[in-house]
Amino acid sequence: VRDQGAQPDLRGEFVFLKRLRAELAGAEREGELHIGDDAAVLVPPKGRLLLATDILVEDVHFDLSIGTPADAGWKAIAVNVSDIAAMGGRSSHAVVALSAPATVDLDEVFTGIKEAARSYGVTLVGGDLSGGEKLVIAVTVIGESGSTAPLTRRGAQAGDLLWCTGPLGGSAAGLAALRRGARADTLLARAYLRPLARPAEGISAARAGASAMIDVSDGLAADAVHIAEESGLGLEICSVPVAPGADEDLALSGGEDLELVFTANPEAPVEQTFAEAGLRPPLLIGQMVAGTEFHRLRGGVLPRLGWVHEVGSGRAQPRSKLGPPDAERAE
Amino acid sequence: VRDQGAQPDLRGEFVFLKRLRAELAGAEREGELHIGDDAAVLVPPKGRLLLATDILVEDVHFDLSIGTPADAGWKAIAVNVSDIAAMGGRSSHAVVALSAPATVDLDEVFTGIKEAARSYGVTLVGGDLSGGEKLVIAVTVIGESGSTAPLTRRGAQAGDLLWCTGPLGGSAAGLAALRRGARADTLLARAYLRPLARPAEGISAARAGASAMIDVSDGLAADAVHIAEESGLGLEICSVPVAPGADEDLALSGGEDLELVFTANPEAPVEQTFAEAGLRPPLLIGQMVAGTEFHRLRGGVLPRLGWVHEVGSGRAQPRSKLGPPDAERAE
Repeated sequence: VRDQGAQPDLRGEFVFLKRLRAELAGAEREGELHIGDDAAVLVPPKGRLLLATDILVEDVHFDLSIGTPADAGWKAIAVNVSDIAAMGGRSSHAVVALSAPATVDLDEVFTGIKEAARSYGVTLVGGDLSGGEKLVIAVTVIGESGSTAPLTRRGAQAGDLLWCTGPLGGSAAGLAALRRGARADTLLARAYLRPLARPAEGISAARAGASAMIDVSDGLAADAVHIAEESGLGLEICSVPVAPGADEDLALSGGEDLELVFTANPEAPVEQTFAEAGLRPPLLIGQMVAGTEFHRLRGGVLPRLGWVHEVGSGRAQPRSKLGPPDAERAE
Repeated sequence: VRDQGAQPDLRGEFVFLKRLRAELAGAEREGELHIGDDAAVLVPPKGRLLLATDILVEDVHFDLSIGTPADAGWKAIAVNVSDIAAMGGRSSHAVVALSAPATVDLDEVFTGIKEAARSYGVTLVGGDLSGGEKLVIAVTVIGESGSTAPLTRRGAQAGDLLWCTGPLGGSAAGLAALRRGARADTLLARAYLRPLARPAEGISAARAGASAMIDVSDGLAADAVHIAEESGLGLEICSVPVAPGADEDLALSGGEDLELVFTANPEAPVEQTFAEAGLRPPLLIGQMVAGTEFHRLRGGVLPRLGWVHEVGSGRAQPRSKLGPPDAERAE
């Protein structure tokens, strides 16, 4: 049963774990216990507790011939922080469940994980590590809603304006550029390899009185329609914000830009609240309307798109949360 | 970029998700929102928040020629509930991140997940679903510590008695029996395929004043030594409780029995507290002693063992939490 030949790998793994544990020690508040026991012990948040999980799979969500293990680690944290941000919440703690073949350097994976965690103020408090044929990173992030109620996809009202925190399609354009041989340190490539979640923007949107919010993980067309459907409304998009190097099709259908799309009453002080927080002003892209079947783009029909652009030779795969049937857009 | 050929699979997947979402709806408390948005919204617990994550990988932790996808789903929940139980806590909510090839029936996986969740009073509140070449199930469970402080591995004192909630080695013996062709519905096979976590026992141990606790995931020899090392002590095991069909070696080195091992002052009302809760009395198996290098079994040397018995042809792999360097026992 015991594969003795595997021991050198494992010993390396445990030297790694011991080092990681030492490195991550010391972030505990009074009464907390992070890494090193059966479960992490945390002081619960005062507001609502937010919980998000995402799994990234080699050759489905990332390709190690295009990006590094550190890029995959970064993205595994960023997409979860983005989910919490889309509720108007602040991410606080993460656990990492990781399966990796011996050919993947765990240090590299954790370099990206730690960089992202540091960027977003997230403390790593536990995890699990396994062998496996492909690198798989499943991250769960806990957050809290703070002073505002969590912002769901359901609260939009007819007449609400539709806003987006930044231009879209950069991630998909970056992947295309990398496939054409672009360097990983170009801005376009980084939009794909190191997407930025928008927690500060999410909190400002909530403070400004936003009525519904989502992060753009499946492309604007799919994700804005999620808000419309969950709110029992239609929508009219008047302007598609296109990232440099992308085009409108990529902005509508490309995934993982991690910008936030939110709705707010026209009276809500959206631009002012963003300005006071020192944030780039959000872009006004449309309006919510009555009529659940009404999905319009500048007076025409909004294309029903919504795949994330997948890498590798595996079957295409939308990033499908349990629940929102994202791929129903894909017909 | 889009693999049109994959659409039939995906459409099936999303019919599945829609059904699952409907099935899991309605468990929300006031102010909560479970499946279907960017993140789950929960009312935080009053006590400490406990957080555990475990990843189970096909051909590393389970073999679909030996057990079913439902068995893997069950175990993915049970091992996390066991981690929370080992802190003396009660599991409340879970998120499931799952990667599966099209050949695996997601309904089967979720049958096991839902059975275990129902058994342990755990509500599924979200998840993520992806394609992939192997079935990988990463579950994160949230729990709460209730009226007692979380029980770590660190609190044992010299002179404390060492208790175990049940006989050991059944899981490893069950795997061996299945390999010899045993039926899956035998008690021995079920000990491996459907291990039972012990949350009630964990809570009773905490109430009785236990000083340290761990669940047996790597075998008694390894896990009891974790308590000793984390508490700066040695230990003497006087009796190894062996499950029917197992032997002492399997009890010491086999993993995933999910029984709890805990320490308590000799004056603590351990047996009485278990009896009052209607639980099988725990087994007295040894005592903690001064001297960190003192690891004894009935006066002799405690073998330094500690692999989980792995299935499949992959490299052997201990179930290694980030932190506790389990495999250091394996030399």
